[in-house]
Amino acid sequence: MMEDERYARGLSILDAVDGESGHRVVDSLRDIAPDLARHIVSHAFGDIYARPGLQPRQRQLVTIGVLTALGGCEPQLEVHLNAALNVGLTPEEIVEALIHSSVYCGFPKVLNAVFVAKRVFAERGLLPVGAGRPGEV
Amino acid sequence: MMEDERYARGLSILDAVDGESGHRVVDSLRDIAPDLARHIVSHAFGDIYARPGLQPRQRQLVTIGVLTALGGCEPQLEVHLNAALNVGLTPEEIVEALIHSSVYCGFPKVLNAVFVAKRVFAERGLLPVGAGRPGEV
Amino acid sequence: MMEDERYARGLSILDAVDGESGHRVVDSLRDIAPDLARHIVSHAFGDIYARPGLQPRQRQLVTIGVLTALGGCEPQLEVHLNAALNVGLTPEEIVEALIHSSVYCGFPKVLNAVFVAKRVFAERGLLPVGAGRPGEV
Amino acid sequence: MMEDERYARGLSILDAVDGESGHRVVDSLRDIAPDLARHIVSHAFGDIYARPGLQPRQRQLVTIGVLTALGGCEPQLEVHLNAALNVGLTPEEIVEALIHSSVYCGFPKVLNAVFVAKRVFAERGLLPVGAGRPGEV
Amino acid sequence: MMEDERYARGLSILDAVDGESGHRVVDSLRDIAPDLARHIVSHAFGDIYARPGLQPRQRQLVTIGVLTALGGCEPQLEVHLNAALNVGLTPEEIVEALIHSSVYCGFPKVLNAVFVAKRVFAERGLLPVGAGRPGEV
Amino acid sequence: MMEDERYARGLSILDAVDGESGHRVVDSLRDIAPDLARHIVSHAFGDIYARPGLQPRQRQLVTIGVLTALGGCEPQLEVHLNAALNVGLTPEEIVEALIHSSVYCGFPKVLNAVFVAKRVFAERGLLPVGAGRPGEV
Repeated sequence: MMEDERYARGLSILDAVDGESGHRVVDSLRDIAPDLARHIVSHAFGDIYARPGLQPRQRQLVTIGVLTALGGCEPQLEVHLNAALNVGLTPEEIVEALIHSSVYCGFPKVLNAVFVAKRVFAERGLLPVGAGRPGEV
Repeated sequence: MMEDERYARGLSILDAVDGESGHRVVDSLRDIAPDLARHIVSHAFGDIYARPGLQPRQRQLVTIGVLTALGGCEPQLEVHLNAALNVGLTPEEIVEALIHSSVYCGFPKVLNAVFVAKRVFAERGLLPVGAGRPGEV
Repeated sequence: MMEDERYARGLSILDAVDGESGHRVVDSLRDIAPDLARHIVSHAFGDIYARPGLQPRQRQLVTIGVLTALGGCEPQLEVHLNAALNVGLTPEEIVEALIHSSVYCGFPKVLNAVFVAKRVFAERGLLPVGAGRPGEV
Repeated sequence: MMEDERYARGLSILDAVDGESGHRVVDSLRDIAPDLARHIVSHAFGDIYARPGLQPRQRQLVTIGVLTALGGCEPQLEVHLNAALNVGLTPEEIVEALIHSSVYCGFPKVLNAVFVAKRVFAERGLLPVGAGRPGEV
Repeated sequence: MMEDERYARGLSILDAVDGESGHRVVDSLRDIAPDLARHIVSHAFGDIYARPGLQPRQRQLVTIGVLTALGGCEPQLEVHLNAALNVGLTPEEIVEALIHSSVYCGFPKVLNAVFVAKRVFAERGLLPVGAGRPGEV
Repeated sequence: MMEDERYARGLSILDAVDGESGHRVVDSLRDIAPDLARHIVSHAFGDIYARPGLQPRQRQLVTIGVLTALGGCEPQLEVHLNAALNVGLTPEEIVEALIHSSVYCGFPKVLNAVFVAKRVFAERGLLPVGAGRPGEV
């Protein structure tokens, strides 16, 4: 497989998974680190996302866990919460994944992630999540 | 003990420790993850803060250490620096706890935490801290 | 719901998910922090794992992401890689989740996690994983 | 104040707080990084621990919070749990500080810290902690 | 050596390495933690940066690696990317150091760091970096 | 460029930089995650280390900074301290890079890294480092 094909395959997966917010990241690197954009497309998407071993929704559950635990990666979490919705995770599943993470990385990092989710869901008209269930809070 | 009592006990401790900024966090979760708010109230406050083994000021010293070291948790640190003042730690003790932390987690994370403290203290009219001591800087 | 029921529900889920290695953690806390064991059972398992919003396999994918990213949590990762197998993730899916994580938290933390997986899989007679595929490495 | 006095002051505080395990760290650096040992003594102890703003027990509560949250610092945590006992924190207070930390940095890092505490307390004949209280776990 | 000399030496190195942005940090601490500023000047610069064992450019390469990996330290990274340019690292070398870091700490933290670099380079009229090379992205 | 060439180039650089300890990592993945080994060789070494923008010694200074700051990556640090020596950094420069890091990530993580260096240097007959300078500690 040639480098060009690897890059093209990565770009096509980036397009399908991250959509517009993925392209914004690539574009924003153009004048500072275009090679980093190229490696992200070719390696992260062309090499790794292209692998058949997990379904797209499974990949995003893992990604949400990693980014929530790392902390300080809110911009990337925003891209990947959009990606999670793009590949078919529901807002309820995403919120549940974040609540679940609190057991392992504590409430503060999870609160940071939930407020990113709130912004992403609001932009896509998906709020409120889990409302309408009486007796909570 | 019933779930309702646990939640009520947690809410009462949240109120006493975190005050208004704690309630703002709970409110901000209403349309995205009300269950997370419920677990924070019931578990963090109803289960853990309710335990008698440490005094409130001791709990906040530990909390300041954890949040400073984690990094990226400035919003939660803001809540807990307010909490620290609410339970009787002085601005001088808080700043000293942050300076002490630098030995173990380095200056950058401590600087982040100190600038949160500066904002919290300013809002409560507590600046300058430690000024008036001649010969410093 | 009473505290006792919450604890019993948590213990039953701990048993189903973590199995023997979960009980070993609880036992090992008996002489140092029995209350921590109780909170883990009641809150982590009785409150959070008991929630219906994600399937057990989804929960373990998130957990693997969080623990790999945190780093330094190899003993807990060992428990949860066993849990992942217990709830039906395959060795191939687990390895794929770890490879996927490398994009987001780098190769070193992933290598640490993979070597825990190697130990867990070896104990359960699940090695080699992904071998037999010609042309790799 | 001369460098020599600063170093001497630091060594005296290291001696009082960390005791034998602090000296072991300094000794172990002799053939690899003696200057690092000197900076730890002069700066961490001579500059920071020498400051009057917090009591020794308060300093160790902050330290326990920071080291638990950082993760992967079990050897240093061992030194500082000994220090915490040396300056008068009880095993019960130390365990409570660790349980409290779980709210903010999750159960896995706290479990790592608790198992260090178990080793430290065992060496000093302080186990079991909190046992004898009926009805727990 | 007297404390005053140590502080003066530190201030002179801070001035040479961090320049204006270093002084802004010191100034911003004046009303909240002037002693922290003093320790940073005396210890970080007067003790450590004053050591002859590494050249200034080597020190900034290490610093960039540490701050990128920690995450959440964007304000300090901004100071040190300015410092890196001040001591003679080129924008290309800085970007290369960040791309290199992605292998070890993953793409998200590196993206955060690259966007800080973009801001720093823009303020100093150093954009675009690495443009003009045909065939990239 | 074909995948095969990329892998071959990576393997040749892995060989030159990491030497035997790099090959041990690749070998140890054979029965659990051979594809991870392949991606490390092709991407980390074939893509990134192959780039001309930094000299090998500069790359290892950045790597040491990242791995020290991450924490919990002692096995990978062992590989890269060997790599650092292989490409010509001296033990004194490596120790200085670690001492420098303490400013930014605190003493505990640096102590962990120094004890890895002590083991690596001992195996290669490079101890003591920096001894013979009178008056220290």
